[in-house]
Amino acid sequence: MPAPATRRGEEIRVYGRNACLAVFARRSQDVRKVYLTEARIADFKSVLAWCVKNRIGYRVVESDDLDRLTEAQHHEGVCFDVRRQAPLSLTELLQTCAPSQPALLIWLDGVGNPHNVGAMLRSAANFGVRGLILPAGAPALSGAALRVAEGGAESVALAQAHAGEDVLALLHNAGFKVAATVPRDGAPLYKSSLPLRLVLIFGAEGEGLSAEQIRRADLRLTIPGSGAVESLNVSASAAVLFAEYWRQHGG
Amino acid sequence: MPAPATRRGEEIRVYGRNACLAVFARRSQDVRKVYLTEARIADFKSVLAWCVKNRIGYRVVESDDLDRLTEAQHHEGVCFDVRRQAPLSLTELLQTCAPSQPALLIWLDGVGNPHNVGAMLRSAANFGVRGLILPAGAPALSGAALRVAEGGAESVALAQAHAGEDVLALLHNAGFKVAATVPRDGAPLYKSSLPLRLVLIFGAEGEGLSAEQIRRADLRLTIPGSGAVESLNVSASAAVLFAEYWRQHGG
Repeated sequence: MPAPATRRGEEIRVYGRNACLAVFARRSQDVRKVYLTEARIADFKSVLAWCVKNRIGYRVVESDDLDRLTEAQHHEGVCFDVRRQAPLSLTELLQTCAPSQPALLIWLDGVGNPHNVGAMLRSAANFGVRGLILPAGAPALSGAALRVAEGGAESVALAQAHAGEDVLALLHNAGFKVAATVPRDGAPLYKSSLPLRLVLIFGAEGEGLSAEQIRRADLRLTIPGSGAVESLNVSASAAVLFAEYWRQHGG
Repeated sequence: MPAPATRRGEEIRVYGRNACLAVFARRSQDVRKVYLTEARIADFKSVLAWCVKNRIGYRVVESDDLDRLTEAQHHEGVCFDVRRQAPLSLTELLQTCAPSQPALLIWLDGVGNPHNVGAMLRSAANFGVRGLILPAGAPALSGAALRVAEGGAESVALAQAHAGEDVLALLHNAGFKVAATVPRDGAPLYKSSLPLRLVLIFGAEGEGLSAEQIRRADLRLTIPGSGAVESLNVSASAAVLFAEYWRQHGG
């Protein structure tokens, strides 16, 4: 089922307090329309003043209206229609990373559910991850993912590979190493020196990464564990890995 | 809205493949009834053989029936009616932690949403957390929390404080230090030696911990971050903290 956002061509409906405030702070020029409940007005006073000044429409609506507009219940009383930013190409993303400087990227191979993607973006933003690489053909991020990201999607650059592009070769050319996380038999995370320029590759929840992707990665890392559960959730793994990169190399 | 489980007196409806398998592995004597779809039979062959041998009823049902039985859609084709385990008292939980040995506990002050609680339990089980302390009067864990925990709820002991009990004093008497996580101005996590006997206290998502709880804690820890988002999700914070305890003290 496509998220509402993906059916709207070049606009996306962003909802949730922090997701909307982050869009406003980072790219108010992309805001096309604002809907909010009366209870949210105080919180969004400067946004509404800006709407008036810039002739952007806003409407005070009921919470039920927002349920319909967002096709969700977790809108927290506000949604924006926002011009969607086209993702960068992989080459463009790599140009934003100064040569030989530390940088951490995420590569999603197989698209996870929006809650996991959003949770990863929130943690990624917290730990200064520079960009997220989506595979060729993957759908754009949904409003649900942006809401769960709590604004994190505005500070992690989004890039998408082109069909047929050799992502691994481009990453290697730019001096990055690619690390796959495996449930067992990888290098123990806390005995590993993480490369300064690192791409963490994650597969879809459930299936995980393909054997081929694991084989081609430069490192295979294993997060230690008691064995009481099969694995960590992919967004919990991501948080632990981002945090360890920060611990070793700083933000 | 109470989860289905909390309306059923002493039984709880557990659903999800890994949650059900973990109950079966740890306490098959508590399984009262099994419902599953045809597609799940192969996976649960040994469970069904055990049902026949022990005269426990099982029914092969449609996925729609499971939607109704679990009041959820993420049942993954299986649910069990299970005798609910009464939580331990805090004193009982502390007796399971050998004196002066390393031990990590979680104290939930303010009950989070079931997805966060479940996600914390899954990570807690992975990193060998010994127990989860619920405040007095908190509702029992829901089927949704157990499903998200992917079986983790079966290996983390559950305890509940009594009304009026001085939880902090009991923890101190047992040689534990209590650490609160604060978004800023706490001791930086990666410059802190974590106590060997440690209780991590978490507040409800959104509101967080009360100022009083933060003041009374023995340590205030801050997970470093870029400042691009207000905070980490509570279950991401928990995963990072459990992982760091493991890194410093082993499993």
